[in-house]
Amino acid sequence: MSATRPRKSRSDGERSRAVILDQAARLATVDGLGGLSLSRLADAVGMSKSGLFAHFGSKEELQLATIEAAEKVFADIVLAPATGTRGMARVRALVDGYLAYVHNETFPGGCFFASALVEMSMQPGEPRDRLVDFMNRWLAELEAALREAQDGGSLAQDEDPAQLAFELEAALFLANAQFAAARNSTPIRRARSMIERRLGL
Amino acid sequence: MSATRPRKSRSDGERSRAVILDQAARLATVDGLGGLSLSRLADAVGMSKSGLFAHFGSKEELQLATIEAAEKVFADIVLAPATGTRGMARVRALVDGYLAYVHNETFPGGCFFASALVEMSMQPGEPRDRLVDFMNRWLAELEAALREAQDGGSLAQDEDPAQLAFELEAALFLANAQFAAARNSTPIRRARSMIERRLGL
Repeated sequence: MSATRPRKSRSDGERSRAVILDQAARLATVDGLGGLSLSRLADAVGMSKSGLFAHFGSKEELQLATIEAAEKVFADIVLAPATGTRGMARVRALVDGYLAYVHNETFPGGCFFASALVEMSMQPGEPRDRLVDFMNRWLAELEAALREAQDGGSLAQDEDPAQLAFELEAALFLANAQFAAARNSTPIRRARSMIERRLGL
Repeated sequence: MSATRPRKSRSDGERSRAVILDQAARLATVDGLGGLSLSRLADAVGMSKSGLFAHFGSKEELQLATIEAAEKVFADIVLAPATGTRGMARVRALVDGYLAYVHNETFPGGCFFASALVEMSMQPGEPRDRLVDFMNRWLAELEAALREAQDGGSLAQDEDPAQLAFELEAALFLANAQFAAARNSTPIRRARSMIERRLGL
């Protein structure tokens, strides 16, 4: 029987891996990264648990692959539109990109990284370390753009870019959590207003 | 045999319930409120699962009782020290109380309500509703104190207290998440600095 089925090419395998991980990242924003069991995911993608196990040998491997897939989504939706911008224009593009990513419900439960980091911060291991690293890289993106703005004269010299990156991220982080809980755009509007006022835009 | 053991008085029962829920709230900030199984909690408090089941008939009852216990801790540690203050002094007392509650590791995984709300925001049910309600009451506390400050002249008339409450909470919310992940006091200092600058303190 199985010999009559067409062999799966490598690209079919890659495609189905991408479909599985897309679904895994979405599920993780609803049930948590820790709630991402192979059996639950198998139900969601309509595969057998053993079929999934062939892709991911363990729950931790699945979690790491899911984080990697979510990083690609974040890069496409939030970072890519800011390509080629510099300084204050880049700060704006990153902030706008992030708020759109939340508001458009890219993931059903809000920002993948915000919820996964909160969930995993007390769970030592590679998934937690990757999430902390992601948060640090995101803050470093904001800080670098703010530093460029300062070098270009559109941000006061006495501002501390690291402190200001914390303040922008604070607005974004709470907007995401409130939007996920309430599904109305008030927190998105408040975050934007807070950031524009702070940057003098 | 059991007849020779002293009968437990009602106050013993209450005390042990309080001990169980204290442990449950602590565990929930590490493993999540969803990870709070009767068997795991039974291990943590050194009771049998059936003994625990006598206290809490279901996982949801246990979750609700745990939220209630955490609310009492929050009231004692964050709200009580602000008793009798008004206006801007009250805003400061609430902010200082919250940052101390995080920094002193009242719960091992950071603010119980911040992590539980993020975890449960996509899980419809009474626990989620209680957590959303708690967040709204906390924001209303901040907003009411800001409004008093405005009425008393220590906050500009053109400020929107609801917007400003969002901004203060943004600083507190990110400080908690970063402190839980990194265990250093930089985010606490950044949140304080952000709030003092914003309020002109």
